[in-house]
Amino acid sequence: MGILVVGSVALDSVKTPFGEREDILGGAATYFSVAASYFTDVGIVAVVGDDFPEQHVSFFLRKGIDISGLQRQKGNTFRWKGEYGFDLNTRTTLDTQLNVFADFSPRLLALHRSQDYLFLGNIDPELQRSVLEQMKRPKLVACDTMDYWIQNTRESLLKTLSMIDLLIINDAETRQLADEPNLFRAARQILTLGPKMLVIKRGEYGALLFNSSSIFWAPAFPVEDVLDPTGAGDSFAGGLMGYLAASGACDDAALRKAVIFGSVMASFSVMNFGPEKLGDLTFPEIESRYREFYKLAFFEDIAGNLLEER
Amino acid sequence: MGILVVGSVALDSVKTPFGEREDILGGAATYFSVAASYFTDVGIVAVVGDDFPEQHVSFFLRKGIDISGLQRQKGNTFRWKGEYGFDLNTRTTLDTQLNVFADFSPRLLALHRSQDYLFLGNIDPELQRSVLEQMKRPKLVACDTMDYWIQNTRESLLKTLSMIDLLIINDAETRQLADEPNLFRAARQILTLGPKMLVIKRGEYGALLFNSSSIFWAPAFPVEDVLDPTGAGDSFAGGLMGYLAASGACDDAALRKAVIFGSVMASFSVMNFGPEKLGDLTFPEIESRYREFYKLAFFEDIAGNLLEER
Repeated sequence: MGILVVGSVALDSVKTPFGEREDILGGAATYFSVAASYFTDVGIVAVVGDDFPEQHVSFFLRKGIDISGLQRQKGNTFRWKGEYGFDLNTRTTLDTQLNVFADFSPRLLALHRSQDYLFLGNIDPELQRSVLEQMKRPKLVACDTMDYWIQNTRESLLKTLSMIDLLIINDAETRQLADEPNLFRAARQILTLGPKMLVIKRGEYGALLFNSSSIFWAPAFPVEDVLDPTGAGDSFAGGLMGYLAASGACDDAALRKAVIFGSVMASFSVMNFGPEKLGDLTFPEIESRYREFYKLAFFEDIAGNLLEER
Repeated sequence: MGILVVGSVALDSVKTPFGEREDILGGAATYFSVAASYFTDVGIVAVVGDDFPEQHVSFFLRKGIDISGLQRQKGNTFRWKGEYGFDLNTRTTLDTQLNVFADFSPRLLALHRSQDYLFLGNIDPELQRSVLEQMKRPKLVACDTMDYWIQNTRESLLKTLSMIDLLIINDAETRQLADEPNLFRAARQILTLGPKMLVIKRGEYGALLFNSSSIFWAPAFPVEDVLDPTGAGDSFAGGLMGYLAASGACDDAALRKAVIFGSVMASFSVMNFGPEKLGDLTFPEIESRYREFYKLAFFEDIAGNLLEER
């Protein structure tokens, strides 16, 4: 079953301790769709300017991504420029030019309105709702957001949250949204706002999945050479939604697997600048890394009564 | 098989956002031995002053802990005073009075020299060696250390490390010891210094186990009400060594289980001030929490070829 993703397609200029790239392909919808494309059909709803390089269009087409919903408008493409500190945990935004993205008002094509899976990337919660309202209710709606919307458009964000199934945010956003420093209490509170499932991205510390009945603690892959963390969170969401759409399941076991596939895609994404490494994988490589995650986290249950053994 | 632990027994004054306690029982050897006592016999080698309250002696005896190696000297017991910030991640030491601990020079009793398991708590690396040299080579020697020894007695610490099997430290100490910001590269380097196994404690983010053949990523328990983090790391080490000594095994599967038992004991330890909660458990409670850890981290392996399913 196919996925529709709404979000940014951008040109990124990125500097990390290990190198520098200018005007490379970026944006949440880009990383998400490339990651998801290994699992299922995915269509992008986004906007670019008339300066958007043809090679990037070719890249999407080569990955089998449906870009019929990628609007081209007069003007320049959304540009983001950022720099990472030595430990890659601190990111400084040097410049943001919204350009054509400033007036982005997604209008869905008829063929997109009946997609079964929808990912609402990190955009104005009002726009997120306008997309959802144009659709025949999808089977699963997931959503991202960020500190800006939590702080400045809280009421609107709460409306959006009341309409979605799965929220995928990071730990700082979790605490901010719930206004609660304890992550586990914060998560429980967010599950009362609408989403039946919450996934918390913790970067190098892995991810957490919460639903009404259980918590799942997912590891991160021990990547020794992180070149560029940009897009890791969106690659994670793409792998997660991609697996759910491909399997058609949404029970606890499927969700746990999906979180691991998300972590797999994030671990590949950070190994090179932009979506270079992410776009250059084979499915056996993805499966093989899944198995490495399995070995990383595996331990035996205790069968008998240990005390009686003494 | 029994464990010998060498380290501090102290009187702690602790302030957290959730309360305050004065002159309660503390110290690395205390938390370690209480946690380990649920699994196997454990003996303490430490020193206290003539002010050490009789009720604490009774507490150790009640837990079945061998305190024949707990020396009493003229003077006051080691005192530590500290305060935790709102998120419990920042700790400020307000006062340290070494007192009788300043001249601690452990002399082992004959009955302790042939113990099979030895834990060298966080003391001067020279003292750690002097203890090890007094023993018939134990089956397993584990060791803790801290930033102070890494910075000021590096050569002596390296000598100690060359003689031990298992190093148990936190993530900051790992990076500092290897002088390498990437945790995984740092871990690999430390395994060339002597220890065949390294366990990295990451507090609320869980723990990592490294040996020559694999990495194990252990979760932390989602404790919603942490009252006092003091002693969590030593409780962790106590549970870990306790399980290893009780099982007699030291293969990868046993080590992974041991790390989980360590995490179990740490999760109980932080639920109250001092070793109150830690000292008041039953073994079924410990086993039940182990199973909760298992459920927390469990996900299915992928059996078939997912690509072929599409």
